[in-house]
Amino acid sequence: MHTTLLRKIVPGVVLALGCLSPGIAATVEQWGIHEIRLDGPSEGNPFVDVRLSAVFDNGAKQIHVDGFYDGDGVYRVRFMPDAVGRWTYRTESNRWPLTGQTGEFTVTEPGPGNRGPVRVHATYHFAYADGTPFKHFGTTIYNWIDTPEELQEETLRTLAASPFNKARMLLTQQPTPYRNEFAPPRWPYVGKPPRDWDFTRFNPEFFRHYEKRIAQLRDMGIEADLVLFNPYGKFGFETLDAAGDERFVRYVVARFGAYRNVWWSLANEYDFLRTKTEAEWDRIGRLVAACDPYGHLLSIHNGHYLFDQRQPWVTHLSVQDGHACESPASAKIYRDAFRKPVVFDEIKYEGDAKFRWADLDGFDMTHRFWAATMGGTYVGHGDYFNTLDEDTWTSFGGKILGESPPRIAFLRKIVEEGPADGLNLIDAWMDPGTSGKPGEHYLHYFGRETPTSWAFQLYRTNLEEGMRFKVEVIDAWDMTITPLEGEFVLKRKDRYHFVDTNDRTVPLPGKRGMAVRITRIGGATGTGETTASTEDV
Amino acid sequence: MHTTLLRKIVPGVVLALGCLSPGIAATVEQWGIHEIRLDGPSEGNPFVDVRLSAVFDNGAKQIHVDGFYDGDGVYRVRFMPDAVGRWTYRTESNRWPLTGQTGEFTVTEPGPGNRGPVRVHATYHFAYADGTPFKHFGTTIYNWIDTPEELQEETLRTLAASPFNKARMLLTQQPTPYRNEFAPPRWPYVGKPPRDWDFTRFNPEFFRHYEKRIAQLRDMGIEADLVLFNPYGKFGFETLDAAGDERFVRYVVARFGAYRNVWWSLANEYDFLRTKTEAEWDRIGRLVAACDPYGHLLSIHNGHYLFDQRQPWVTHLSVQDGHACESPASAKIYRDAFRKPVVFDEIKYEGDAKFRWADLDGFDMTHRFWAATMGGTYVGHGDYFNTLDEDTWTSFGGKILGESPPRIAFLRKIVEEGPADGLNLIDAWMDPGTSGKPGEHYLHYFGRETPTSWAFQLYRTNLEEGMRFKVEVIDAWDMTITPLEGEFVLKRKDRYHFVDTNDRTVPLPGKRGMAVRITRIGGATGTGETTASTEDV
Repeated sequence: MHTTLLRKIVPGVVLALGCLSPGIAATVEQWGIHEIRLDGPSEGNPFVDVRLSAVFDNGAKQIHVDGFYDGDGVYRVRFMPDAVGRWTYRTESNRWPLTGQTGEFTVTEPGPGNRGPVRVHATYHFAYADGTPFKHFGTTIYNWIDTPEELQEETLRTLAASPFNKARMLLTQQPTPYRNEFAPPRWPYVGKPPRDWDFTRFNPEFFRHYEKRIAQLRDMGIEADLVLFNPYGKFGFETLDAAGDERFVRYVVARFGAYRNVWWSLANEYDFLRTKTEAEWDRIGRLVAACDPYGHLLSIHNGHYLFDQRQPWVTHLSVQDGHACESPASAKIYRDAFRKPVVFDEIKYEGDAKFRWADLDGFDMTHRFWAATMGGTYVGHGDYFNTLDEDTWTSFGGKILGESPPRIAFLRKIVEEGPADGLNLIDAWMDPGTSGKPGEHYLHYFGRETPTSWAFQLYRTNLEEGMRFKVEVIDAWDMTITPLEGEFVLKRKDRYHFVDTNDRTVPLPGKRGMAVRITRIGGATGTGETTASTEDV
Repeated sequence: MHTTLLRKIVPGVVLALGCLSPGIAATVEQWGIHEIRLDGPSEGNPFVDVRLSAVFDNGAKQIHVDGFYDGDGVYRVRFMPDAVGRWTYRTESNRWPLTGQTGEFTVTEPGPGNRGPVRVHATYHFAYADGTPFKHFGTTIYNWIDTPEELQEETLRTLAASPFNKARMLLTQQPTPYRNEFAPPRWPYVGKPPRDWDFTRFNPEFFRHYEKRIAQLRDMGIEADLVLFNPYGKFGFETLDAAGDERFVRYVVARFGAYRNVWWSLANEYDFLRTKTEAEWDRIGRLVAACDPYGHLLSIHNGHYLFDQRQPWVTHLSVQDGHACESPASAKIYRDAFRKPVVFDEIKYEGDAKFRWADLDGFDMTHRFWAATMGGTYVGHGDYFNTLDEDTWTSFGGKILGESPPRIAFLRKIVEEGPADGLNLIDAWMDPGTSGKPGEHYLHYFGRETPTSWAFQLYRTNLEEGMRFKVEVIDAWDMTITPLEGEFVLKRKDRYHFVDTNDRTVPLPGKRGMAVRITRIGGATGTGETTASTEDV
C-alpha cells in the first residue's frame, strides 16, 4: 500500500441535498431521500470497476447502502431514513477519492402526504410504514416511460384523475402486439437494439429520466411497481447473463431504492422468459432482497406457472390468472395457499382487442375488482382499446378508454370506508359473497346474480341478539348508495345465523352488480359470540 | 464387553413367511411382505428398551427396515421388496438375541391384482408402481376399525360394492358429534381413556387387528389412508409429547409400512389440534418420511389453515375445503399453487345432519366429484346420515345411505376410460368446464347449468382441420351415455377455436349435471397445432 501517495489524492466533494457544503448538517424528512454526491474517477468503466457504499448511523442502528455511478465522474449514494433525529454516514469504496467521506444530517418528521413505504399488514393486506392502511388499486402501463414527452405528461394527468394508487411499469422495454417496433427516446444501456448493447455500461440519462417519473408518481401518492425483466426479447435484454443480471439489479436498487414508493417486481410473466430457470429467478429475488436495505415489497409475476410464492423474499403474490377473480372464493385460495397478500396484477384487460386476454367489457372488469376485493385480495387494472396512433393505455399510457375506472373509484371509496385492517370473507366456505369485519361491517356482493330481494342474515361470529345495524343498497355500476329506512335488530335464527327481529328482507332491483353494506350502529353491549368451535365449522 | 458371556445366549428363532426353518429360502411376491420373526427379551419395557432393524440386500441396493415388538417376547421385521430376485438380510439390535440374524428369500413376480404401492404420476396424478394409473375415488370411515366385529364385516361388504378405492381412517380414535362416548374393543395403548394411558406401551392386539383390516382392504384393491393424529382430544391422545409422538410414528411405520396399500396422513384437521405447532407437524412429517423406506404417499389434512404443502415430505395435498369443489377452476388453483396432486379429502359430507358441513344432497356430492375431477383433482366422499343405532358411515362404517355412490361409480368408469395420465383442464382460464387430453379426448361438464344445446367447439391445441370426433351426451345423475349419430369433423373457426365443418351443435335436455364426451376417431394425419405462443394466451 502506497499510503503516502494515496493520501495526496484530493477527496471528492460531498454534497447533501439541501446542504451547501460538506460538514454542515442538512435536513431531510423521514422517508425522504438524503443523497450524497461524490466526484470520482471517470476513466475505465466505473460501472464495473468502482464499488461505492456508505454506512448510515443514527446511534441505534447502522444501515449499509450501495451507491452508483451517474456518469461524468459523478457518484451518488441515496438513503431513505426511517427514523427522525441525527444521522451520520461514512463512505466505503475501492477508490480512494470515494473512501472515508463522512457527514451528518438531521431527519425531520415526514411532510404532508408522506406515510413512508408500503408494507405487508395483517398478513393479507397492506399499510404504509406510518400505519395508514393502503388499499391497493393498481393499473398497468408497461412502456409509458418510453413514449414522447407529451404523451408521458398526458399519462400523468390521466393517473391523477384516476382511482389508481399503483402503476405497474417496465424497466426494460417490451414490444406490443400492435407495435413491435417503437423507438424509446432513451435505452437503459449504451448501444442499440437488438444486439448492439454494452451490458456493462448503463445510460444514466435513461435512469435520471426514470427516477424523475418515480418521484412524480410518489408526489401524486402512486406506488411505482417496477418490473425488472420481461420475456418479450425482441430488444435483446433477454440475453443478459448471470453477471449482467446482477449488475442490473445492483444498479437499479442502488438508484431507485431510496424512493419510498418503489415496489420491485422481478418480471412480467417470468416463466415465458426462456433464458432463465426458476432457480435463477430465486437467485435474483434473493439478490434484490439482499441489496435493498429498506425491504421494499418484492414479487414475481407469472404467465402460466405460478412461482413458489413461499420463498421468504416474496413479500406478496403478483398473480396473473384469467379466471380466479370471477369469484371471491377462488381468489381467496391464493391467500390460503401462501398466507401473504395477493395482488392479481393481470386478470385480463378491459378492451376491444382481437386478443381474448384483452376483451373484458366495463362490467366484467368492475365485477372482477369487486369479486377479488370481497375475497380479501387486490387487483391491477388494464385498458386495451387500440387507437391506431397511440396504441393502448396499458402499453403506452395516454388516455384510459374503458368504462371501469369510475366504478373502480367508487369501489375504492367503499373499501376505504370499510375496516382499516382490510376485508376478509367472514364465512368463506358457506357464504363466499360476504366480506368485512364480524360484528361491525359487512359487505355482501351479488356479482352477476340479479336478485330482487335478499333475506337479511349474518353469520354468528361476534354477534348477539339486540345488536343494531344500518343497511345500504349499493349499485356497483350506477355508483349509487341507497340507505334503507330504519334499522335491523338481530335475533338468533338458528345454530349459525342471526336475522332481523322482524324478519326484514332487503329489496333489490333485479340488476347485476348489486351489493349490500351492513354497518353496526349500536345495541347489545357484549362482544358477541366468538368463532365456531372446531367441531362445528 | 463380556463377549464370552454374550456368546452363550441362544440366538432367537428366525421365521420367514412360508418358510419352515431358518436358512431355507422362502418366496414372496414383489410388493408382498417378507416377515422375519425373532424371539427376544420380554423383561422391562421392550417397546422402549429394544431397538431392532434389518438391512435387506439384493446386490443392487440395501434397504434399512425397522422392526417392532409384538408382545410376549416376539419381535418382527416386515419388508416389502420392490424387485424380483434373491434378497438377503441381516438384523441389527441393541440386544444380542436379535443381533446378526441372517437369511435369504426369493422375490417372485407380483400376483394378480398386485400393482405395488401408489405413487405420484405426471405431477398431478397417481399411478401404481407398475405404471397402472390409479384414479382416486376415496371415502371416509373414521372409526370403523373400532366397532363391533359384525359392523366391521358389513363395512367391508359395503366397500366391496362401492366405487371407492381409498378409505381414510383413523389410528387414534375420535369421538363423533352423535356419540361422544363409544367403547372400542381395543385401544392402541395399554390403559384406559381419558387419562390412564401408558404411552410407552402399545397394545399389540389393537395393531394386529388393524393390520388384518389393512390386508383385507389391500386384497380388495382399496388403499388405506391412515390418519395418525386427530384433534378431538376426549380420549387423551392429544397429550402425547414429542417423545410419545416419535415412539408412535416409529411403531406404526415399522408395523404397517410393508403393506403396499398404506398411505400416511399425519392428521385429521391438524390445525384444530392445539397441542402441536406447525413446526412440530413438520418434524413429524419429516420423521415419517425418514422412517418409511418405501416412500408411501404422505399428506397432512387441514381444518381452516392449509399446511405449507411445499414441504418436500408432502407428496400430495389432502385438503379440506367446503367450497372449492363447486368449480373446476377453483379446485385447480390448489394444483397451480403447489404442483402436486390434489385430493379434496373433505368437501362436506352427503347427509341429513344438523351440521352444515354434512348436509349435501346426492346431486351436490355428485356435482362436487365431477367438478373437482374436471379440475384435474381428486375427491374423498363422506356420508353422514344419522341412524340412531349405528351413527354414520363416515364415523363408524356400516351402510352408505346417500344417493351419490352409484353416480360416483359411473364417473369413475368415465375417468378410467379417459386419458391414462389423468384429466387436466385444456384451456383453464377461458373454459373452465373442459378437461381431457388435447387432440384426443375431451370431457365438457355443464355443472348446475341447464343448457338445451351446446355449440361444439374445441380449443386449438393439437388440433387441425379434418380431424374427426365422436360425441356422446352424458347424464351424470341418471348415469346414461348417449352417442350422437355420425361424426364431427373439424374446421377452423377463428384464432382460438375449431368447430364442426357443418356447424353441428350438440342437443342437450335442459337438465343439470350434463356432460359431453368428445373422442378422436381419425382424420388429418398431423399432430395439429401446438400450444399457443406466449404472446397469444
